[in-house]
This record gives sequence, C-alpha cells and structure tokens, in this order.
Amino acid sequence: MRIRGYGITVGRLPTGKLNRISDVPGVTVGHSTVIGDRHQTGVTVIMPCADNPFVRKLPAACFVLNGYGKSAGLVQIEELGTIETPIALTNTLNVGKIHEALVGYMVDRCAAEGVKLTSVNPVVCECNDSRLNLITERVVERENLLEAIAGARPDFAEGAVGGGRGMGCHGLKGGIGSSSRTVSFDGRDYAVGILVMTNHGKLPDLVINGDPIGRRITDAQNADLPDRGSCIVILATDLPLSDRQIRRVLKRCPVGMARLGSYVGEGSGEIFVGFSVANRFVSDSGPAVTAAERFDDARLDPVFRAAAEATEEAILNAMAEAETVTGYTGFTRHALSEYLGKV
Amino acid sequence: MRIRGYGITVGRLPTGKLNRISDVPGVTVGHSTVIGDRHQTGVTVIMPCADNPFVRKLPAACFVLNGYGKSAGLVQIEELGTIETPIALTNTLNVGKIHEALVGYMVDRCAAEGVKLTSVNPVVCECNDSRLNLITERVVERENLLEAIAGARPDFAEGAVGGGRGMGCHGLKGGIGSSSRTVSFDGRDYAVGILVMTNHGKLPDLVINGDPIGRRITDAQNADLPDRGSCIVILATDLPLSDRQIRRVLKRCPVGMARLGSYVGEGSGEIFVGFSVANRFVSDSGPAVTAAERFDDARLDPVFRAAAEATEEAILNAMAEAETVTGYTGFTRHALSEYLGKV
Amino acid sequence: MRIRGYGITVGRLPTGKLNRISDVPGVTVGHSTVIGDRHQTGVTVIMPCADNPFVRKLPAACFVLNGYGKSAGLVQIEELGTIETPIALTNTLNVGKIHEALVGYMVDRCAAEGVKLTSVNPVVCECNDSRLNLITERVVERENLLEAIAGARPDFAEGAVGGGRGMGCHGLKGGIGSSSRTVSFDGRDYAVGILVMTNHGKLPDLVINGDPIGRRITDAQNADLPDRGSCIVILATDLPLSDRQIRRVLKRCPVGMARLGSYVGEGSGEIFVGFSVANRFVSDSGPAVTAAERFDDARLDPVFRAAAEATEEAILNAMAEAETVTGYTGFTRHALSEYLGKV
Amino acid sequence: MRIRGYGITVGRLPTGKLNRISDVPGVTVGHSTVIGDRHQTGVTVIMPCADNPFVRKLPAACFVLNGYGKSAGLVQIEELGTIETPIALTNTLNVGKIHEALVGYMVDRCAAEGVKLTSVNPVVCECNDSRLNLITERVVERENLLEAIAGARPDFAEGAVGGGRGMGCHGLKGGIGSSSRTVSFDGRDYAVGILVMTNHGKLPDLVINGDPIGRRITDAQNADLPDRGSCIVILATDLPLSDRQIRRVLKRCPVGMARLGSYVGEGSGEIFVGFSVANRFVSDSGPAVTAAERFDDARLDPVFRAAAEATEEAILNAMAEAETVTGYTGFTRHALSEYLGKV
Repeated sequence: MRIRGYGITVGRLPTGKLNRISDVPGVTVGHSTVIGDRHQTGVTVIMPCADNPFVRKLPAACFVLNGYGKSAGLVQIEELGTIETPIALTNTLNVGKIHEALVGYMVDRCAAEGVKLTSVNPVVCECNDSRLNLITERVVERENLLEAIAGARPDFAEGAVGGGRGMGCHGLKGGIGSSSRTVSFDGRDYAVGILVMTNHGKLPDLVINGDPIGRRITDAQNADLPDRGSCIVILATDLPLSDRQIRRVLKRCPVGMARLGSYVGEGSGEIFVGFSVANRFVSDSGPAVTAAERFDDARLDPVFRAAAEATEEAILNAMAEAETVTGYTGFTRHALSEYLGKV
Repeated sequence: MRIRGYGITVGRLPTGKLNRISDVPGVTVGHSTVIGDRHQTGVTVIMPCADNPFVRKLPAACFVLNGYGKSAGLVQIEELGTIETPIALTNTLNVGKIHEALVGYMVDRCAAEGVKLTSVNPVVCECNDSRLNLITERVVERENLLEAIAGARPDFAEGAVGGGRGMGCHGLKGGIGSSSRTVSFDGRDYAVGILVMTNHGKLPDLVINGDPIGRRITDAQNADLPDRGSCIVILATDLPLSDRQIRRVLKRCPVGMARLGSYVGEGSGEIFVGFSVANRFVSDSGPAVTAAERFDDARLDPVFRAAAEATEEAILNAMAEAETVTGYTGFTRHALSEYLGKV
Repeated sequence: MRIRGYGITVGRLPTGKLNRISDVPGVTVGHSTVIGDRHQTGVTVIMPCADNPFVRKLPAACFVLNGYGKSAGLVQIEELGTIETPIALTNTLNVGKIHEALVGYMVDRCAAEGVKLTSVNPVVCECNDSRLNLITERVVERENLLEAIAGARPDFAEGAVGGGRGMGCHGLKGGIGSSSRTVSFDGRDYAVGILVMTNHGKLPDLVINGDPIGRRITDAQNADLPDRGSCIVILATDLPLSDRQIRRVLKRCPVGMARLGSYVGEGSGEIFVGFSVANRFVSDSGPAVTAAERFDDARLDPVFRAAAEATEEAILNAMAEAETVTGYTGFTRHALSEYLGKV
Repeated sequence: MRIRGYGITVGRLPTGKLNRISDVPGVTVGHSTVIGDRHQTGVTVIMPCADNPFVRKLPAACFVLNGYGKSAGLVQIEELGTIETPIALTNTLNVGKIHEALVGYMVDRCAAEGVKLTSVNPVVCECNDSRLNLITERVVERENLLEAIAGARPDFAEGAVGGGRGMGCHGLKGGIGSSSRTVSFDGRDYAVGILVMTNHGKLPDLVINGDPIGRRITDAQNADLPDRGSCIVILATDLPLSDRQIRRVLKRCPVGMARLGSYVGEGSGEIFVGFSVANRFVSDSGPAVTAAERFDDARLDPVFRAAAEATEEAILNAMAEAETVTGYTGFTRHALSEYLGKV
C-alpha cells in the first residue's frame, strides 16, 4: 500500500495519473531483485524513452548535494547536458559490473539497430546495502540488468525491490519509491516525476507531515545508527527545460528529504539526476543550428514545488511499500507499515 | 521576544550561551538602520574577529543554492578559501555603495595599523527589500557601514533592524535572526553559530515544528506573493574546519529553511557563507609550510545537525523579534508575534 | 599599431572586418581614462547591444580559472545564464563605485524607458593597477562610467586606455585589446569576438608565435616580478549558444594565454565572461514556452579554435597598442613596441 | 628515447631524478598491454603509495576541463578531498570492467590485511582508443589490472604501453608519458610529478618549443582528424597541499597542453586528478582534531610552473617513446620519432 493508502497526502499540487515517474510520457522502470542467504540486493533501471536514447539524446543535468558516493556518468552529463543511456541503480560495490553490463546493452542495442557506437556514457548510481547484503560478493550480474530492462513498465513495483532491496530509510526499511506532480502552463499539463532509491536518515529524526513519528518507534534495531546510506533521486519531466534549468529543479528535491527529517548525513551521498523528454535531438548529423523550445525561468516556481513534493512523497512510498527484511547477519529493517497508525 | 519565549524549541542539540552567532569566540554583529518616509532599510555587519582579518585571514567557504542574487566577494572565497574583511548585509541595489564603503574601511584600518593593502576582497550579501523600501534611491551610505561596525557587539539586536529592516519572511515580517548550537568532541565544546537575513518563503507554506500555522493566517496582505526575496545565511564556528568542510556544513543550512516550509523559490537567491575562527594564518610572510589543525570528516554529523537546527531557529528568531513594518506604498509586513499562540 | 602591423599573425582562422569584439552585431566598447600625478586608471565598458539588455536579456556564462579576484555579478550569471547590463572593467578597489554607478545607470535608463527595475545584476570585473596607480584613492567615478558608455563605438581604442590604463602584461605595458574570428556553419558566417583587459604574466615567459622574445628583453624594470595581476576576458558571439555552451567556449580562451607564456600565476585572477547576442528573450511576460535556436555541441570545434586564437591576438593587440607609462612611484611599464623587431 | 634524448628541453625548472611521477616518494606505475589482431589496448595503474591507501587516505582533488568523458570516482574525490585506491587508466568502454576489478582488488587486499571494507571509491579514467582497437569487445580483464599492479615500479615504461597502447596524440602515436619537476621551499626539495595518457590534439596544430613541426608532417594518415580523443593527467606531489590547493595546481596542467598546440577539442575529455603523499590520515578512528601541515597559497607559483612544464614534457615523452602502431582496420598512428629532427 502506498502512503496515500494511509490517508497521508503530501503538498498541494495534483499528482499525475499513476503518481509515478512514469507519468512522464515514455518513461518506464524495471527491477531485478536478488534474494538469497547472504544477499538482499538488485538493480533498478529507469528507461527514459522507448526508442534509443543514444540516437536521440535527452537534455539532462545532475546535482551533487553530498558527493560521498560512487555514481558514474555524472561528469559527462554536466559537460554535455545530456543522457544517452538508461539510468541504473544498484549497490555501491556493483557499480563496475552494472556499468559494464550497461555498456554491453548499449553496444548490442546499437549494433542491432545499425547505429555506430564507439563511446557511450552509462549512468549508474548507487547506495550501500551492506547492512542487509554481503556487498563484497557483488552478485548483481549482467543478466539482472537485462531482466530489469526487459521488465520495464509504467506501473512498476516499489519498496524492497530491485536496487532498493537491501536499502533502508530513517532506520526502517526503504527502497524504491516514486511520485509525480502535474503542473500547468498556458493551458497545457506537464508532468514532473520522481523516483528515489532511499538509504538515508535516522529513525528519531523521521517526521511525516509534521508528526515526529520516528521518536515513538522504539523497538526497531539500532534506531540511531549513523546516517551512512545515501539517497539517489531521479527526476523526469516533459517540460522543455534546459540542462541549467533541470539542475535548478533538482536543487529543490532535497527540500522533500529535509521535511521528512533528514539533515543530509556526512556519509550519505545525495545525488540528483534529472532529464527532460522534450527537446531531444540527434547530434552531429544535421545542420549546426536547429529549432528548440525554451522555458522561461521566471515560471519555474510550480516546478520547484512539484520537485520538492514529489521527492517527499516518493520517499514515503518507498517506505510504505517496503516489507520487513532481515539480512544475513540477522539485522532486521522493519517496515514502516508495522507502525503507521499504530504508534 | 525570541522564539523560545513562545515555548517553541528547535532540534535536539544544546544552544550556546547567547544562542547567537556571537557564541563563536570573537564574533560580533552590528547594525545601522535607515527608517524614513520612503525607506525601510539598512546594513548589518558580521565582524569575524576583533583584530584585523586582512592580516590574519580566516578559513572560509560559500555555497550557492540559488544564485539569483548580487552578492559580491564569493569568487575569491571559493578560490583562496578565506575571508579577509567583515561581512556586510544590505539591500540589493546598495551592494556597490557598501562594497566601496567596506573597501574604504579596510584601507583606512590597514593604513592606521601600518599594514600594506593594495587589494582586498569585501564580502557583501543582499536581499531585496523593495516591497517596503524605495530601493532605487540607494540610501545606505558609508556612514551606515561605519556605524554598524562601531556598534558591533555579542548581544546584538534581531528582527527588523540593520540590513533586515525592510525584509520579509514567509509573507510576514522578517529580518535578522541568529542562533547557535554547541557540539562536543573529545571533551571540548565548540560553537556553531548562524546569522540569517531572511526574505524568502510564502505564508501558506510556513510550518513551525510541524504546525502549518501559515495556512491559518489569512489577514496578512498579499499572503501568497511570489517567493522573490532571498535568504542570506552566515555561519561561524571555532571548529578547525577546512574550506571544503565548511562548504559541506553550509550545505546543511537549507535543511532548516525547508523544515519551515521553503521550497527555495525561483527568484529567491539563497547564499551561504561560512568561516572558522580556528586555523587563522598570516600569508606570504613566513615559512611555506606551517602547522595547522585538521578535523576528521567522519565526525561532521553533529556539526551538520547543528547547522540545520541553528538555521531553522535563526529564521524563527528573525520573525519572532521583528515588529510590523509598513512601507512607503502602504504595504504592510505583519509581525509573527501578532499570530503566535493566537491562530 | 596593432600586432598584425608588425607582420605577426595568430592562428589560422579569418578575422572579422574590424578584428574586434565589435564584429559581433550590436557590440560596442567605450573607455574613460584617468591620468594624473598619482593615477593611471579608468574604466572600460562593453555594451552588449544598443537596446536595453535588462529588457531583452542575453544568454551568458562565466568561467573562473583563478578566482583570486573581486569581479562582481558572476553568481547570477551562473544561475540564470544571462547578463542584463553592460560589462564594466576597472581597477580592483573601484569595483564598488563602478558597481554603484552601473546600478545608477540602469535605474535611470529603465526609468527613462518606463521599465520597472527593482533588482539588477551589474557585471564589474577588475585587475589590479597598483603598480602604476595609487589604487587606494579610488578615483574612478560615476562620471567616468557614463563617459565610457556615451563613447561606446565599434572602432574603439586599445592599449593603455580605459580600465587598462594602469595595467601591465608580461612585465611590459598592457591594457585593453581585442580581436575576432569568423566561423561558418551551413553557409552562414558568425563572429566570435574577444576583448581582454590584461595584467598577467612574467616577462621572461613571453613567447610570440614560438619566439621567446621575453628572454631577450633585459632592460625592462623588475622584469621577473611575481605574476599578481589578473586577466579579464570578455567573449561575444552571434552564434545561438546556450549558457552551457558559452562556458565551454570560454574554457578555451586560456589556451591563448598559455601560448603567449602565461602559466596562470597564483595571484592572477583569470575571469572569463561570455555572452551571445542570439536567442535574446524577454522574461516573465509572455508564454512559458517559446521558440529558440539550438547549436549542436558536436560542431563547436571551430568556435573553440576561434576563442583561443582571438584571445591570443587580443592580448597581443593590448600590448602592441599600449604606450609606455610611468606611474606615481616612478615605476615604468615599457611598451612592447619598443622591442618588437628590435630584440 | 625520451624527448630530452632529442635535445629538446621544456621549461626552466629542474627535473626530478627519474623525471617521472615516481620522483614523488612511494609512487609507482605499472602496465598491462593487450596486443592482438583486433586489439591495441590495456591498462595502466598509478599506485599512490606502497601501503594501503584505503587505510591511510591521501589528500586529492580533480579538475574537469572538458567533461566529455567517462571517468569514474571523481564525485567522491571532490566531496571528501581524498583518494583511497590506486588510479587506473584504460579505454572508454572498459571503465566498468576495470572499476569492478579495482573493487575486487581492494576487497581482497583489505580482507588479507584484516581491514573492514564495505564501500570504496575506485578511480578509473579513460581515453578512447577505437581508431586502433576494436573497443566494443572490451578485452581488458581483471587479470590485466592485477598484472599492472603487480608490475608497478618507479622506472616504468612509457609510450604505446598499458592504457596508452591504442591512444594517439596530435595525429601521431601517443600513449603514456611522465615527467617531474623539483621545487624548493625553505631549503627543502619537493617533487611535482605528472603522468599523462594522451589521446588529444590535431597534427597541424603540433608545436614543440615554438617549432610548428606538425605542419611539416604531411604523410601521416588522416592528419587533420577531429580532436575526439581526450587527455588524462595525473599529478602527484609530496608538498603538503590541501585538496583546494591541489585543484589550483591541476588547473595549470592545461597550460602544458596548450603550449604544444591543443585548443582542447570538443570531443576530447580533459580530466585532471591530483594527490599528495603528505598529510595522509586515518579517518574515523582517533581524535576528531589532529595536527597537519599547511602550505601557504602565496608560495604556489613555482608549483604552478612545475605542473605546466611537467605536463608539457610528459606529453612529449609519451609521443617520443611511442612506436608506430597499426590497428585492426589498417589505420596507422606514426611515431613522432620518425619525424623528429627530420622534417
């Protein structure tokens, strides 16, 4: 059950139809989950479009609030203002394997489509699931990435799935969550969608819509563990935003984290990656100058609000949808659903 | 009356003795306030030390969350990791005059002390008080800066004073506020102090400790005006932090803003400047390599929490201490104190 | 006489008609020069357009290679990707006065045109002319800025004029210089123009087109003084570049400096500001989404080359056109023309 | 034969004993080279110290001049100001595999030493060798990384070896090169060492010490191909520089590239990573505040010059030491040695 199922709403803007990042046209999400004696981990993939993103790049940007993390691909996003692959989320020590798998996927896909590829910038972000997962064994494989891609769909699962399988949030179980908001300009609706992979925050700090529920949950294990997890936030929109504007919007996502009680812990890498499905373009093959759409910065306020609200709700959805999971050491991350409405 | 006078506390860390930025040894603050038929404005100055900061520089950093602003001096702070003057806060169109006045102050002070100065980097930050102040007339003068410096003291006033005279906050009256936290490492106490000049936020978004009080205040003028104000946050500490570490701490100050309901509006320049009074040094006159103290990044979490809490409380102090002010157009910014405990 | 008058050409791309930044349509430059017993200083202004830049903003970006400097206005350029005023160049300690004067100019101009202005971001860059100018007296006044603006024209003077009056270059006399290159895409010509205010470099390092001429000039005073000057580079183009792309181009300007022998000294603030006269727009008054032109990053190489070449030639023009100037202490900066073809 | 063997010297500072990055105490370099019908590629590893860098981190920084590249690990370097693994250089599409291999190496090494590791930040940089190497096959394996590490030594090979096997430079053969400079402060010598993996530049632009030799080489294939290669520059020093200071030094490395004729092509990712072997520290295990050494920024000029000179010479060493290599398509990159002293 998502957070709204508990009667909890966030913010004042309307959600999209699915209240997911997939309210942005063309965006889908898939998971591959690894569960075993020693492992609670996996990979989640955000497909920015159905066609090949390497051929028609998407405007993109990133924002690093806390760079204590191993995300790959951000350097080129910053320079060129584009993404050209799906975005994969996995655990910290599996970044290399998924990077290689994503290169392989792009090489094969481009070969199949007759597209020349000798260089490609995979985007792989991560959180550290080592409290539940024997992370040093690095068990997420190429097949997991391909499974996640093959299963990508608009109505994807949330909670303890995919890359979020072993992740926590505010001392409880977290994982993958999503939400969206609808904003309107000049009579047209646009979607601002968020997907998070949570792994941040301390339990006593957890506040939901002003209610300090975290202080009342006293039976969770190691409730006040150091905040050494990270949070990855992926934003998508069909607004024709430039890379600079996407970065401005991304900088409002942490507002949603702060409202839930995070103060962005030292060991918690907070990485924000955003893209637009508008203004896509084919580089290096046509005229130097082409037509594009431009959005007026002065109208960004509702988009900022949307990013803050959707991030907050996406985190809550990750928690609300997650089940209790016990790791290979016996450490247990409890589901928020055990407490909602009860403490 | 400060916010704690209303029975409202923020966070879990202990405050310093004054609960002001001046809990950091040597730091003082002064104001010069301009009140007239057409003007509600002024200048506030943060003195980082009693001795000459140009001679013994202070480690410093800045963080720009929203660069829609005209703050001067940040470029050199970023490059050299130091400040070498007091920090002045004033209105947007007066940055040039106060910049010139601060240069003049430093030239004169250095001349008086026999210190050679041919280059100096004044730090001047600003918010836009044009809703209450006829800003285009630029009435803050050199004398105002000197008055603010001369009056600098540890137990300075807050609210609608100095640079904060014409500023708002969440649709109500804001201005200058301060707060501090005490953090302890290895048996020694350190101070983390914050001073804010607020001018940001929308009234319906205002939340105090989880209470959405802003929605209940319906008689304030133009309550839902666009968030085009800015917020300047100055952080001081006696922890021996490097410039990089100060920047990391500054990045947690927005958490305090978000908890009060801000989503960092498009037109609201949010600028954060921090410095340490530890590890000061004289450049270009002794050996190339000298001894310094280093703080371990892995211990920063309580400092981050302190920055978030003190920023939140400083904003509330700015609002709680501010009186109602009516500007030259008849527009009124109401005091929060008119509503606290009443709506 | 400009550098080409000495038979020295730079690079392989064709220059514009004037071989100045004013080859970019609408761009003009004016100077006001202050010469006195104690003063060799002034102000130079780059007018990005004939109409009001505050009304129709220009896409812009900056790049800070060495932030040891006091340039004002860069924070907002980075955030919004625009400039909205002329760009003024002056000496280090006069930034505040010229900032105030530029605010005054914009306030008056907007008032005269019936444009509402309550916030504006003046761009003021600086070098330190204290070796020739008694900089602490800060003698560049509002009238100087207005004179420079009033006198702005396409065929402006170079050398020891305006803001460049007291500046050096590689131990010799420098100042203001300009150059341009023409690049063609799909049958249309575009201009890439550069204006520099030099004050950087050491004499023994000076190399012109591979000739280490600096080592042969042994009679200049204090030839091997520390490189504590700075260099300001302003780039203009009529290519429809985004702010991100302008920044990419700016990053190639230092190539021109390096080819002349600079290694970017510690005390030499190197600041690069660029703008495009294409894709100008009026913010906050029409539809949220409008049409614009987009340039393909993959075609940037000739633009990069143009920026490098024009920067190199602009610096040489500043030196070639500058006369010998002796300052109030008797310190003399010799003209390059005294040596060209003779050592 | 290195470039000095041809009577060509660069700059005015003295070199270290080996004139390699390994003049910095503890730094060694190893290669593994893959040569086959379809492959000319490999991996090069820079070992920053003999002991475990994960236990005693090294101060570090990076600078991205052109982020058109896939280097991994930079985000955390920026945030924490440290490196904690060897640095690996390989081809673009092999970053994932070498990332995974480097994680594996660190996991195994820490396990063997009884060090707990659940998170580690591998640094992997890359250039694109697809003109000589069938890059999509991704043939650099874990064994290659281990071979490179096992073979690391102070007197390592240069030229067409390791990660540089398939790389070019200014249209000719490039690869791995190194150089160093000695700087002295207060009677003590320090080393500034550079290692480059070149793959940038166009032949007609090549200038060596002012001689435009590139224009005279007309028989090389495709001499004026687009500059789409990249250049990776690794800097090491035993000066006690802070992360901010290391970044300042890195920003002078491009000067060496520019002097050789590069204008930093659009498709050429130029990434600079630097570290110091001084001020190493163990995090999260002792007191929060410890003693460290600090270097005075005002003394950095000779260090800047050293970085520029050593980068220039390292690139020339890469070219001078490289042999002619023909790739799987028949495309040949000629050795500079075929032309030195002959054209």
